[in-house]
Amino acid sequence: MMTTRIANQKLRERVMSAEEAAALISNGQTIGMSGFTGSGYPKAVPQALAKRIEGEHAQGNPFRVKIWSGASTGPELDGALARADGIEFRLPYNSDPIARAKINAGEMEYFDMHLSQVAPMAWQGFLGKMDVAVVEISGITAEGKLIPSASVGNNKTWLEMADKVILEVNSWQSEYLNGMHDIYYGTALPPNRVPIPLIRPDDRIGQLHFDIDPDKVIAVVETDAPDRNAPFSPPDAVAEAIAGNILDFLEWEARRAGLPKSLLPIQSGVGNVPNAVMAGLIKAPFEQMTAFTEVIQDGMLDMIEAGTLRMASATAFSLSSDKAEYFNANAAFFRDKLILRPQEISNHPELVRRLGCIAMNGLIEADIFGSVNSTKIMGSKVQNGIGGSGDFARNGYLSIFVTPSVAKGGAISAIVPKVAHVDHIPQDVQVIVTEQGLADLRGLSPRQRADLIIEKCAHPDYRPALRDYYQRAQQSSYGKHAPVLLDEALSWHDRFVKTGTMHG
Amino acid sequence: MMTTRIANQKLRERVMSAEEAAALISNGQTIGMSGFTGSGYPKAVPQALAKRIEGEHAQGNPFRVKIWSGASTGPELDGALARADGIEFRLPYNSDPIARAKINAGEMEYFDMHLSQVAPMAWQGFLGKMDVAVVEISGITAEGKLIPSASVGNNKTWLEMADKVILEVNSWQSEYLNGMHDIYYGTALPPNRVPIPLIRPDDRIGQLHFDIDPDKVIAVVETDAPDRNAPFSPPDAVAEAIAGNILDFLEWEARRAGLPKSLLPIQSGVGNVPNAVMAGLIKAPFEQMTAFTEVIQDGMLDMIEAGTLRMASATAFSLSSDKAEYFNANAAFFRDKLILRPQEISNHPELVRRLGCIAMNGLIEADIFGSVNSTKIMGSKVQNGIGGSGDFARNGYLSIFVTPSVAKGGAISAIVPKVAHVDHIPQDVQVIVTEQGLADLRGLSPRQRADLIIEKCAHPDYRPALRDYYQRAQQSSYGKHAPVLLDEALSWHDRFVKTGTMHG
Ligand SMILES: CC(C)(COP(=O)(O)OP(=O)(O)OC[C@H]1O[C@@H](n2cnc3c(N)ncnc32)[C@H](O)[C@@H]1OP(=O)(O)O)[C@@H](O)C(=O)NCCC(=O)NCCS
Ligand SMILES: CC(C)(COP(=O)(O)OP(=O)(O)OC[C@H]1O[C@@H](n2cnc3c(N)ncnc32)[C@H](O)[C@@H]1OP(=O)(O)O)[C@@H](O)C(=O)NCCC(=O)NCCS
Repeated sequence: MMTTRIANQKLRERVMSAEEAAALISNGQTIGMSGFTGSGYPKAVPQALAKRIEGEHAQGNPFRVKIWSGASTGPELDGALARADGIEFRLPYNSDPIARAKINAGEMEYFDMHLSQVAPMAWQGFLGKMDVAVVEISGITAEGKLIPSASVGNNKTWLEMADKVILEVNSWQSEYLNGMHDIYYGTALPPNRVPIPLIRPDDRIGQLHFDIDPDKVIAVVETDAPDRNAPFSPPDAVAEAIAGNILDFLEWEARRAGLPKSLLPIQSGVGNVPNAVMAGLIKAPFEQMTAFTEVIQDGMLDMIEAGTLRMASATAFSLSSDKAEYFNANAAFFRDKLILRPQEISNHPELVRRLGCIAMNGLIEADIFGSVNSTKIMGSKVQNGIGGSGDFARNGYLSIFVTPSVAKGGAISAIVPKVAHVDHIPQDVQVIVTEQGLADLRGLSPRQRADLIIEKCAHPDYRPALRDYYQRAQQSSYGKHAPVLLDEALSWHDRFVKTGTMHG
Repeated sequence: MMTTRIANQKLRERVMSAEEAAALISNGQTIGMSGFTGSGYPKAVPQALAKRIEGEHAQGNPFRVKIWSGASTGPELDGALARADGIEFRLPYNSDPIARAKINAGEMEYFDMHLSQVAPMAWQGFLGKMDVAVVEISGITAEGKLIPSASVGNNKTWLEMADKVILEVNSWQSEYLNGMHDIYYGTALPPNRVPIPLIRPDDRIGQLHFDIDPDKVIAVVETDAPDRNAPFSPPDAVAEAIAGNILDFLEWEARRAGLPKSLLPIQSGVGNVPNAVMAGLIKAPFEQMTAFTEVIQDGMLDMIEAGTLRMASATAFSLSSDKAEYFNANAAFFRDKLILRPQEISNHPELVRRLGCIAMNGLIEADIFGSVNSTKIMGSKVQNGIGGSGDFARNGYLSIFVTPSVAKGGAISAIVPKVAHVDHIPQDVQVIVTEQGLADLRGLSPRQRADLIIEKCAHPDYRPALRDYYQRAQQSSYGKHAPVLLDEALSWHDRFVKTGTMHG
């Protein structure tokens, strides 16, 4: 086909089929893939590689690779490779159901990382070397610079670190992406680090395109394929109630603390509920808001169109398929209101703290003292991963966690005596919100937190059992600072696993 | 007495006795105290206040106050006030045994915070207003500037925030402290935050003295009293073995990663073992090292004298009594090698990450997947608090945690199936070290971590039981990503509470 997207002569000469490119990858290699929450991941080479792996396996030959990415990718990547049993090790985040099942069956190693730390840790070298990078881009300039795609993720780092590079040039991605990126080349390992010179969410501190050493590029593959994001459920009554509780709180907090009319930069996590909050913010009495966040969701585009949101800085799009098509059709309108940066910048603790982000993230369960489990169902089955939630929750001006009060039709309480796994400690969990209400936990001791969380956040069906547990804990706990009944604290989870419900 | 330490005429006129000063404090007030890990805390006014509170209580009158500090203080402050039952609420850190007992009896509320966040959160306003600051200083200049004492902590913030200020001028503190401080006045609330302009541990970015509005100073009290730090136990064989394991690792890592001869700035936590590591580092093949840390311990002064450590930046001294006297006698030698800063700077995530600190902190227990409990014995009794461990562990170049493999003469294993409380998540715990060995957990999945932690760190007496638990968990856990037996995970703690030993 040879699109006009490849304007550089030297790199045009490297164009080949996905199968030819996949043949350049060997068993046991470490591959740095582009892709972040379902956008900008390579679509052809991973599928061709999966086919190749299936072929090798059919012949009794071992073939598995280590996959590093930005965050989650799509079914053509994690799904295809996991189905082929081709992934030996995966970092830093996964939400693919097939890969998840392999991980939870103990058949695949998964290293779940703070997303801001992936690039610096890769440079530290303890993760090993990267053999090949497979990176989707939206074009190549005449000078041989790479125009990033719908996500930036760790691509700058992968392109620098990898011995060899395979590029996928996807002409489905809007040409208007060109100009939207801000690729900062100023990071370093200590002792050579300097301040990141970003002071406002809309500051541009880098360049538009990736640099690349053309001699490292062993293949260029042309594609024309959509990002296949998971659709969001439309906000239901529960999500709307949660959003309502947050909006009331933000209005109150803005008055109390004398925050600007534009509030502070918002960060909104992945999942259905955070997306619903964005929908709700359209109606909030804030003006000229900004987002300094990880991903641009459907709700943020709506906010921009409504004029509530002035601009958003992120590392990737995470749009439903419909919204992605809509963005492509209207990219000219959006392009000067969006900035995509490397994830070490979008999630950088230095910047999240400096800007004072208002962080809103989903959770799986919280306990009565405010520890939060974002990743491991019943403490052992990983759902997705910690993602950027730790980057934002510890460093934001406000750290809000949201969840429906029950899961699985009421069989599970999202508020439990003790979480079965901890991703966020009480110090990093300032506000918990369910459809039942909102608990502002700032400045409170564990016992003060427990009273609030049980009364404001728990579902009425579970409140009596939580009160009962907590009252008994206050009487007979070893220490009374954060009372716990050691032989009962995890019994709700145990009961669910054994009987299918947390109800006694 | 009227020492020459008070060179300002106006403030000389406010000199009064501690009893007179304490009479200016009222029931229910919030008091910002100076003091950080046993240094620079006010010694006279808190004791006078405690007496007054006892008197009021004897007459049946209520009298309790809220105490905010830098970190832990000394027996004349937390001890005296807690004994008088005068503390209603305490933040952000405590290690006083009497206050600890009250907290763990459920008689005192305690809000345990990341130490870098105390000042910014105080400015956010949700903690309430501060009525009085009681701050130890080492002198007052003719112009009315305050010369800080042996700790800086949150004093800059308390002096700015409080409605009224009581100063204790302690002539026991060395006059050579004058010149050692670096008080940065550039912090702000978002949206007005800017990069902290510190690039090397020895950069000076602030001023030598605190500013103060003299009209707020309601009392100046003269004291001549030593800081009463808890003594360190001299390094025993266990501590020396731990230190040895760390030194071997640091040498290996420095070679592997090509670190400079001066390594990277070290941070060393509170407790006996971190102090022993400092003792060991004297013999390490590093040169011109620096420390960017929270407290200056005995071992660091030794390193400076030995020439291994070029300079240390911290927020406070935390010396044994003998070493504190030694420092005072030799302050002229040490003064240009030490910098004391506000704790929001010494512990600032932005700076810890930029400088790439090597963080070494103590722990109470770790579990087989690498979660760490630093604060709550058996999950419910607070020992001290999280302190700065989270500031450093999440942001450092390396995050090392140290502990003897057993506590209480072997009745407790520091390596357990599941920690009873989590302060540090596996993402922030890269290396665990006991006298048994060292587990380098970087880049490993939960199951890979479990094998290493059990085999390298656990005490041989507990290894078989850990292996047995973990093998059964791998078989019957709900998920096999991070296998857990929900009905057994906390049974070791439960057994200890019920029988006095974790042994079955
Ligand atoms: C926590 C998280 C999974 C919630 O996502 P969500 O889409 O809002 O949540 P859902 O309610 O759809 O739940 C997802 C699944 O977990 C299940 N679940 C939710 N709460 C549960 C609980 N307490 N116990 C067991 N399962 C639970 C749901 O039933 C659903 O399962 P299903 O797929 O079988 O239907 C998601 O926010 C996440 O992955 N967070 C971590 C990463 C992160 O925060 N990134 C943002 C950084 S910028
Ligand atoms: C974790 C911490 C308490 C260890 O301190 P330490 O002085 O090295 O530890 P010790 O071995 O003396 O233990 C302190 C007490 O806890 C007990 N203990 C230690 N491990 C235990 C365990 N696993 N279970 C129960 N008790 C335990 C000890 O027996 C001792 O009790 P005692 O006072 O009754 O004798 C200390 O490092 C701390 O407070 N850390 C959190 C704050 C922090 O890290 N600050 C540094 C930031 S810069």
